[in-house]
Amino acid sequence: MGKKTTIYDIAKKLNITAATVSRALNDNPRVSQATKELVVKTAAEMNYEQNRLALALKSGKSMNVGVIVPYINRNFFSTIIRGIEEELYPMGYHVIICQTHDEAKREKETVQNLLNAQVDGILMSLATDSEGEEHFKQVLKKNVPLIFFDRKKNVVGASSVCIDDFLGGFEATQHLIEQGCKRIAHLALNRSLDVYKNRFEGYRKALKKNGLEFNEQYIIELESDFEAGKEAAEKLMKLDPPPDAIFSATDHGALGAIKYIKSKGVKIPDQVCVVGFSNEPFTQFMEQSISSVDQSPLEMGKKAARVFLEQLEQKGKEKIVKEVVLTPKLEIRQSSLRNI
Amino acid sequence: MGKKTTIYDIAKKLNITAATVSRALNDNPRVSQATKELVVKTAAEMNYEQNRLALALKSGKSMNVGVIVPYINRNFFSTIIRGIEEELYPMGYHVIICQTHDEAKREKETVQNLLNAQVDGILMSLATDSEGEEHFKQVLKKNVPLIFFDRKKNVVGASSVCIDDFLGGFEATQHLIEQGCKRIAHLALNRSLDVYKNRFEGYRKALKKNGLEFNEQYIIELESDFEAGKEAAEKLMKLDPPPDAIFSATDHGALGAIKYIKSKGVKIPDQVCVVGFSNEPFTQFMEQSISSVDQSPLEMGKKAARVFLEQLEQKGKEKIVKEVVLTPKLEIRQSSLRNI
Repeated sequence: MGKKTTIYDIAKKLNITAATVSRALNDNPRVSQATKELVVKTAAEMNYEQNRLALALKSGKSMNVGVIVPYINRNFFSTIIRGIEEELYPMGYHVIICQTHDEAKREKETVQNLLNAQVDGILMSLATDSEGEEHFKQVLKKNVPLIFFDRKKNVVGASSVCIDDFLGGFEATQHLIEQGCKRIAHLALNRSLDVYKNRFEGYRKALKKNGLEFNEQYIIELESDFEAGKEAAEKLMKLDPPPDAIFSATDHGALGAIKYIKSKGVKIPDQVCVVGFSNEPFTQFMEQSISSVDQSPLEMGKKAARVFLEQLEQKGKEKIVKEVVLTPKLEIRQSSLRNI
Repeated sequence: MGKKTTIYDIAKKLNITAATVSRALNDNPRVSQATKELVVKTAAEMNYEQNRLALALKSGKSMNVGVIVPYINRNFFSTIIRGIEEELYPMGYHVIICQTHDEAKREKETVQNLLNAQVDGILMSLATDSEGEEHFKQVLKKNVPLIFFDRKKNVVGASSVCIDDFLGGFEATQHLIEQGCKRIAHLALNRSLDVYKNRFEGYRKALKKNGLEFNEQYIIELESDFEAGKEAAEKLMKLDPPPDAIFSATDHGALGAIKYIKSKGVKIPDQVCVVGFSNEPFTQFMEQSISSVDQSPLEMGKKAARVFLEQLEQKGKEKIVKEVVLTPKLEIRQSSLRNI
């Protein structure tokens, strides 16, 4: 291994004194925030890793940030994580990722575990069946910033970054109505989570605004994704009359529905239009591409990271909680675009 | 929150004394390994979390295991991680995931970072440009088990779990030859990594065995995946004669090649057969499904976790290093199956 970077190397590079570098790295209030950030960034660039533990011990920071998601293998979540890393890595932070497999029990354990591992912040998305607030309160009690992204809970002291799911649901449904669809089914997921509730409410609002009847039979709440999407489509296509469009709250649900519908020789989009939600990459890869609502996950991750950094700066002062809402974007593709 | 589980609850459930439970949890040599495992498993099931930190402090264990992969958003890697979790979670271990974005610099930092975070073991797959051994030696010097999966390095003291990539490359190429293909191109990735070198060698061996000429022009080493696969296909299809088959060392490379070939009106599999590697889910989802070599990632993850647990048991005794090699399985689908 090469020669280790010292604070003298960093000082030379930035043309400041080694004492200032040391103070900056130790979060001394006599150094401005701008200088601190510059020093931390430069230290990271110059590979000042070796002394990071000593720094962490002195400053009481681990320079680790914990990120918790239901599943790492959803493009939506892995892209959010990439966004978080893109913002935090240049600031000297390392991101530790944990998945809950969408289970409330694991969510609790993982939060506790990350606290034990002394992370400087927790950025997370809820498990579908998440329950209680005690584990979140423990985080905040330790003065560790807690930022929810996408699936959030209203906990006093926690911040959040989400998209406007209501608008996403509304626009997807409005688009289907504009394609001439009149009997629009909706595949929901657990509506005790805000994200799925709001997509459903957006769907309802669009029906109402266009004078279309709301039909409870056309609403199916999926327990899982791909397979459940197939089964839901089977149920729906047996109705009399069957729906002429499906707005699914997830892309995997839409994919399952499409597979079933095609297997029955029913034409998409001529007989049934389909729109998904999340804009997972496979929606583009398919030979017949799938319309979907994009949730700008990269931006969501970056924004969550920036909220975390802001909260760190407020340490000691009064905490300002942020609630950021991003705008979704409907990507219209072959599965719902009729030649009209 | 409900009443906390105590060691008395665990003792009652297992019909042993609380002292035995306590000794088992503290890794006391007077308790058999079987009892220790049973107690740890039961404690995890009964939510004995709250006391985990105390346990960790007493035993010198953090009960955290670090897993490092190039990218979390590849199904191959996320499935390995799931396999690791399925084995370790019932034993009371939590898995912390880090991604290197396939960069050597981040790999070094991440290993250091996980050591700082006091993990009990590191299970990892190399970055493509991984260099040096110093960071791996540091892990082993601290008596922390190091297990490579898939992309491994031969470091004294480290174990590994891989598939037989040579066999995978050989069988994919043999299959293409049996479809009547004679001019088989190969899309490789960085062959300084064993996995890609061995897939290439397997390909060469199959050509040789069948008396087919090896043509250097038909070998393209991709720098990335999907886009590079497109460009590679463009180059290959301009050759005279162009290849009548492509064996790609990655599924994303195969996907890019297929997209380009189809856009030129060339028929798959009639004019060009294509086989990928990794059996990513999209290879099945495609309307024309893609043949691919399955690497049994779930089994690979479970096996790596079991090797880790074995190494823990050997603590203090002489370390036995394991090299596990799993057998790949060729999944033949529409992109390479001719009606012959």
